[in-house]
Order: sequence, then structure tokens, then C-alpha cells
Amino acid sequence: MEVAIHSHSGGLFKNLVCGFLYLHRSCFHHGRSKRLLFSRLFPPMNLHGDKEIGVGRSGELTCKSQRLMLQAGLIQPANTGCFHYMPYTVRAMEKLVQLIDEEMKLIGGQKVNMPTLTSANLWKISERWDLLGKELFRLKDRHNIDYCLSPTHEEAVTELVAMQGNLSYKQLPLMLYQVTRKFRDEPKPRFGLLRGREFYMKDMYTFDISEKAAKETYKLVSGAYGRVFDRLGLRFVKVQADPGSIGGNLSHEFQLPAEIGEDRLLMCSDCHFAANAETMKTVETNCPQCEGKLIENRGIEVGHTFYLGTKYSQVFGALHSNSENKPILSEMGCFGLGITRILAAGIEVLSTETDIRWPRLVAPYQICVISPKKGSKEEVCMDLLESLYDNLMDTVPQLQGEVVLDDRSHLTVGRRLKDANRLGYPYVIIAGRRILEDPAIFEVNSQNNGRTLFLTQEGVLDFLKNIQMA
Amino acid sequence: MEVAIHSHSGGLFKNLVCGFLYLHRSCFHHGRSKRLLFSRLFPPMNLHGDKEIGVGRSGELTCKSQRLMLQAGLIQPANTGCFHYMPYTVRAMEKLVQLIDEEMKLIGGQKVNMPTLTSANLWKISERWDLLGKELFRLKDRHNIDYCLSPTHEEAVTELVAMQGNLSYKQLPLMLYQVTRKFRDEPKPRFGLLRGREFYMKDMYTFDISEKAAKETYKLVSGAYGRVFDRLGLRFVKVQADPGSIGGNLSHEFQLPAEIGEDRLLMCSDCHFAANAETMKTVETNCPQCEGKLIENRGIEVGHTFYLGTKYSQVFGALHSNSENKPILSEMGCFGLGITRILAAGIEVLSTETDIRWPRLVAPYQICVISPKKGSKEEVCMDLLESLYDNLMDTVPQLQGEVVLDDRSHLTVGRRLKDANRLGYPYVIIAGRRILEDPAIFEVNSQNNGRTLFLTQEGVLDFLKNIQMA
Repeated sequence: MEVAIHSHSGGLFKNLVCGFLYLHRSCFHHGRSKRLLFSRLFPPMNLHGDKEIGVGRSGELTCKSQRLMLQAGLIQPANTGCFHYMPYTVRAMEKLVQLIDEEMKLIGGQKVNMPTLTSANLWKISERWDLLGKELFRLKDRHNIDYCLSPTHEEAVTELVAMQGNLSYKQLPLMLYQVTRKFRDEPKPRFGLLRGREFYMKDMYTFDISEKAAKETYKLVSGAYGRVFDRLGLRFVKVQADPGSIGGNLSHEFQLPAEIGEDRLLMCSDCHFAANAETMKTVETNCPQCEGKLIENRGIEVGHTFYLGTKYSQVFGALHSNSENKPILSEMGCFGLGITRILAAGIEVLSTETDIRWPRLVAPYQICVISPKKGSKEEVCMDLLESLYDNLMDTVPQLQGEVVLDDRSHLTVGRRLKDANRLGYPYVIIAGRRILEDPAIFEVNSQNNGRTLFLTQEGVLDFLKNIQMA
Repeated sequence: MEVAIHSHSGGLFKNLVCGFLYLHRSCFHHGRSKRLLFSRLFPPMNLHGDKEIGVGRSGELTCKSQRLMLQAGLIQPANTGCFHYMPYTVRAMEKLVQLIDEEMKLIGGQKVNMPTLTSANLWKISERWDLLGKELFRLKDRHNIDYCLSPTHEEAVTELVAMQGNLSYKQLPLMLYQVTRKFRDEPKPRFGLLRGREFYMKDMYTFDISEKAAKETYKLVSGAYGRVFDRLGLRFVKVQADPGSIGGNLSHEFQLPAEIGEDRLLMCSDCHFAANAETMKTVETNCPQCEGKLIENRGIEVGHTFYLGTKYSQVFGALHSNSENKPILSEMGCFGLGITRILAAGIEVLSTETDIRWPRLVAPYQICVISPKKGSKEEVCMDLLESLYDNLMDTVPQLQGEVVLDDRSHLTVGRRLKDANRLGYPYVIIAGRRILEDPAIFEVNSQNNGRTLFLTQEGVLDFLKNIQMA
């Protein structure tokens, strides 16, 4: 079969269909829509039955999300605590970043990008060069000058703001953030993306003119973080936390309750009190606020917020002039979200033992369409599935690029349905028995609630038109 | 003025307008559109007259793009050869990455993300650990194991593919790419983002079953790279190049002709021959292909392509089985685009001595609307400008987030127009004298062709509706 592929700029490549993820339909139809074929996706799925996949390096602690992500080919171990993110994971990560960008824009966040290499001098000024000990990856450049691979950027951002000179209070609150790779030489990397040595973090730094204003900003950003988890459908607990080496005197963590969580959370059964157990000086069984009973849970930390005061602005001279034009040390806050950790933690808390469940909005692909098996009774309806696919592309623009056609028609529908569940598509469409009815009836499985709908083509289109995409 | 701000999830924050980039209009109108105010953008513009900005560290070579980018607050020096990318630059970079993603998707590229830390072992297997000498940033982890900060990922990706086991020829060509930060300990970092020690690169690695197929893929990717530059409106020359430490026997560079370019290009005046001078064994003045006269130009390398053969697949055992199920060493190619370098090089070749010109599709914001000066005759027309802004947001959805309102109405329109030109908005809308006519006439300056249009509000909307956004 010869298929002509039109390039964006109108050039023409011939006979190249085997080189493409997408089967272009330009030979059948006009227009640029195309089919995304499962058999072309990397890595190829080797989810055949129960072939055991080596999980983790020897002696490494593992967990459900790590096992499921390795089995589905979402991550691939590189070095200790470092993973290759495969195409599905990159898609999920980009969707998560976009969702966070939206929330940050709504509160006035501005996106920057700071270097990984930070000079030792900066960290010596803040007295963290020695404090961080072996957790800091350190290196020398060709001129024998010391650097670290930044695990966080309080020093860098404060110097950056200080270098702008005396900024006006009219520009406040100033909220700068970035989404970049961070580095931490963990003593025991474990749990896949949950505790690695190289990971993506979204870190925001805020600047205000007074403690009061900084605490308003603290609430504002915390609210936005809460909305991120709400939109992801992840139930979180916000607990009072230890500021650790970051500093400051007010700090909270966003925790996802989970058995494998490394943090012990204490929550009051009567009031809103919730704390990381490490913040309690003595072993407490009653709430310090209302004397209610404290219940213990384990949690995975996915976000951490800090009110920093002037700890960093003082040493780097970050100033803002107030309404009387008097320079005032900036009151700062910092706010982290673990990007790759949220992906893994989401999978950890939502998945079954065998099937991945993504926070739906960040699922790499929203829909998988499974073609009938070759040689089956339903094979005569192959074109119905394909035309459903093409109609979806034509009539629901927000699903462009979101629908995979599992074209491995040498396998049974049941086998492929099992693979689809393992990969975690929120919706799977198959041609069951009722595809032979007139009009043909498709089966739509909604993975997140376990329901199956039986719908005509029109019904399927109507149903999927209403999927919220962001 | 009290302005109510509705959060995404419907919560209500009061009195926070000063905390926002956007002036929400919810108190005036329904709907969620809002104005993006210039005075709130970071860093604040200090383009006042001719205040000299320190360009580069002492003794560092500088160039036009570096000077313009520093003056406009697009980048801020951090360490030698490392820059903070400020919000404008991050926007441009994200647009560039999206454009490249589109072209990669069209040819079947799949996006991955590989770690920065690569173990010395991998680089010793390929015998590049010693070869790269001081250009490689090296470090040890807490267990005294050697790593480098990857400047490129041939080793990592080949091992990654090899670990998938025997892949089928049906999956070929396999084209994996990533957009990540790369590291190179340059002896003399210079020219801002053109030659830094830390930079963003898009690198693609391809796998094929035969030399013939690999060379087809080589053409396919090269074609896509050409389309990237075409869409950016950047005139490029593709020259034969030296494969250097990457290896292989076929290599080309994409070069932007520019005086400050560090490469010497030789181009034939009669045929299509073009080469980096370093590939010519002797000093040639005539074309080796047609004896035509060779003309010398200088160029900035913005892309580099390599046919690698089996150099890496051999040492890492990356195999694909052919149609007879026989394992064959993968024939590889690799393809780089300098993301941050393209931004700087684009500015270098398009800008005037005082004003930045972006490749239009990646300009951080497409439009700047300048309000009348307070106390001027035109001040009575302030609401006309604001309603033009709001109508633009309402009627041209692709301009959401792309229009800045320069609200510094204490400054003259001329001063702000000068700033707008320095920042490089493709379109600037002002209220000149003719705003007082009935109907009011707006002035639209198209920076890229120097033309000024005089249009009614309807005319402005019609004109801007047709801006191509991607």
C-alpha cells in the first residue's frame, strides 16, 4: 500500500508510512487527521502474561507504582536513582506542567529558568554549603572552581532579584517559579520516581514588603497548590511541617495518604489539626489544639511550602522600596511541588495491584480503541471501529493526539483490553458482540469508575465530546 | 478600587489585585478575560535612555544578541557561561519547543527524557570518557562512583534501546528525542546564549535496519529541521561538516550566516556545494564538485546531523530483528538542535543595533498595546484602547495571553514605543493623533516589516485575526 505523506510545508514524501507513528489518511480522505497506532509506540508492549520484570537494582526497596511503571514501560532504570522517562511518561509530565502553569498564571506567577550549576560561593554565603553535606552533588570546573548541582534555588533566585536593584512595592508580590530538574544525592534512592537522585521539581519563590503581605501570599500559593491536587482528583492532607535546611518558621507539607509513605502524619479526629509527626516534640496521642484523639496515617510528601522571612534576602541584599521610597528587606516564601513524584504518587494511590490509574487529566492518552481480532466474527466490523476513530478526530478537536488505535489485531480483544487497563487509558472502546447489531453498538469502558457503556457511534461521540480535558 | 478575583475553583479572594499580573475585569464585565499589564512584568523595564548595562564578565567576548538580551532583561548572568532565563525568554523557548515538537510528531518522533547524570562506565565503553577531556563536567557521588553531566546522549539512548531486547524491524525507523539541558565545560564561554556551559538542546537518535534505511531517515529528519528554520523565517545554509567526537562518516550542519559566527563556511557560487571550511583538507578556492568559485561566509551553527552507522549499537548491543527474524545491529543517526542557541542566533541575525527582532512565531508576546499618556489630549480615549484590548481578547482566542497592555501612562507614548521596539513585540498598537477622529483610528506598527497601518477598531480586529500563530 502506498501512502502519500504531506509535510507541513507541502513537500511530499512517498512510501514512508512504515516510518510513522501515525497512519496518515491523506490517501483515503482529505484533511490532516491521522491514526495513532499502538504497534508503533515505544517501547513496544511486552506485557505478555506474567513475565516477571526485574524491579529495581538488587536490594533496592520497591513499591507498587515503581513495579507498575516498569512493567508498562513508562520508566527505565538508568543509574541508581535515575530513570529514563519513556514517551508515555513525558506526555503525562507535560500535561501536569501545563496544569500547574495554568494555576500559577491565575495567581500571577512568572516562569523563569535558573541554571543547574550553582557556584559554591552562593551556598557559602547562605551557610548551606557545609550544612547539606553529602546530599549535595559537588563538582569542580576546568578552572578548579566549586559548584553544586542545585537541589533548590533560594540562593540563586534571591541573588537574581537583588541584582535588579531597588524594586518598587508596586510590583509585589513578586512570584517567580520554574520547572526544572533537581539533584539530591540520596543515601538510599528507592521507590522509583518517589525518591530518586535526579527529579523534576516546580519551585516558586515569592517576595513581599511585609510579613503580613508575605503570609497572604503564602495562603494564595497554598490555595493554588490545593487546586492543583483537586483538579488531579488526588485527596491530600496539608500538615504542619519542619522547615529543615530550607529555614523559616512556618511550613506545611501536602501529603497523599498512602501505606508506603515515608512520613508519619498525625491528624485530629475532631478538629482540622494535622502535622507531620516529626514536628511534635514529644509523643502525643491527643491534639494540642482541642485534645481530640490523634490518628496516625502514613503519607507521601508531594508539596512543601515555607515562609522564609528575611533569611535569604538579608544575606543577598534583596530589597524593595516601600511607598515612602524606603528600602525594605524582602519577605520571602518558597513553595515546591514534586513533578515526577506527583506522577508516581498519583499512580501509587489510584492504581490497583495490576492496573495503572492515572489522575485522569494527566493520563498520557485519554482513549484506546481496540480493533476486532483477525478471524473473529467481529472482524467484518473493522471499518466501523476505524471510522469511529476517524470521526472522533474530526468532530472532537480536543481529542486530537489523545486516541490510540490498538491495531495488534492478531491478539484477542480480551488480551488487548488487559494491556489497555495496565497502561491506564481512562477510556477504552471495543467492538464486543453487539457491534454486529444494527445499528452497531460499541462498548466504552470507563476505567476510573469501572463502568461499561453500550453506545451507538453517535452516542460514543456525544459521550466523549463532554470529557473535560484540562 | 476593590476588585474581586475569582479563583479557578470558584473561591473568592478580595483586595488582591496588586498581587496579579492580570487586571481581572470581573468587576466590570462578566467572563474570565483579563488584562496583562506591562508594569507587572518581571524584570521591570529599566530601558531608560542609554544607561549602560554591564555586558558579560570582564574580558568576555560579547555580541549584539547578548547585549540586546541583557538590556531588555531577557537573560541575567549567573555563573560563567550560565544564565538565568527570564520570563520573556522562557515564553519564547516554550514556543520554540512546541514548534519543534510539532515537526517531530509529523515525522514520527517520540519524546523521551534521559538523565543528566550519566555513569562514567557508559562513556568508557564507547571510549569517549577520555576523548572528551576537559569539556566534560565530571563528578563523583557519595559512593565515589564517577559520573559526567551529559553533553549528549548517544551512549545512554543506545543502552536504553538495547535493554528493550530484540526489537522488530516493523517498529523502524525508531526516532527518539528529548529537549533537555546539556552541559559542556567550554574553555571560553562567550556570546551569551550562543556559547554557554549549560544550555538546552533538542537531540534526536534514530534506529534503522540498514544503511539505506538509515540514510532515508537522515533525509527525513534533515527535512524536518529545514522546516523548523523555514517556519521561524531564518535563512539557513546546510553545509557538510566534520563529525568530530560524535563519530560516523556523514554529517551536516545547519548554519545561520552571521558576521560573529565562529564557523567558516565555503559556498559554491555555481552549484549547491556548501561546506564547513574545517572539512576541506587543503585551502580551496574552487568548488570540488564543479570548479565554481567558493565564497566564504561566517555562520552560527544551530543544528548538526550525523549518520552514525553502528558505532554505538555495536558496543551496546542494540539489535533489531529483520523480516527473517535475524538480529541485525541497528544503524543509527543523531540530530541536534540548539534550543537556546536558536533563540540567541535568531535575535543576532534579525535585530537592528538597538531593537530586538524575534523569529515572529516565537516572540514572547505578539502584541503590545500602549495606552495614551496621562495629561495628553489623547487621554480622553483611554477607554477606547482598553476596550480594543478587551475586544481582542474576546474575539481572537488565539491571542489570549499574547497581548501586553503598557500601562505606564506617566511616560510618553514615544518613550514606550521605543521600549516596545527594544523588546521586539511583532505588533505595537498606539493611540496617535487620529484616535480623536470619528470613528477613532488606531496606529498598528508591524515591527518585522516596518509598516504602520491606520485602522478603525474593526480594522484592527480583522487584521489581527489573521496573524498566524504557529
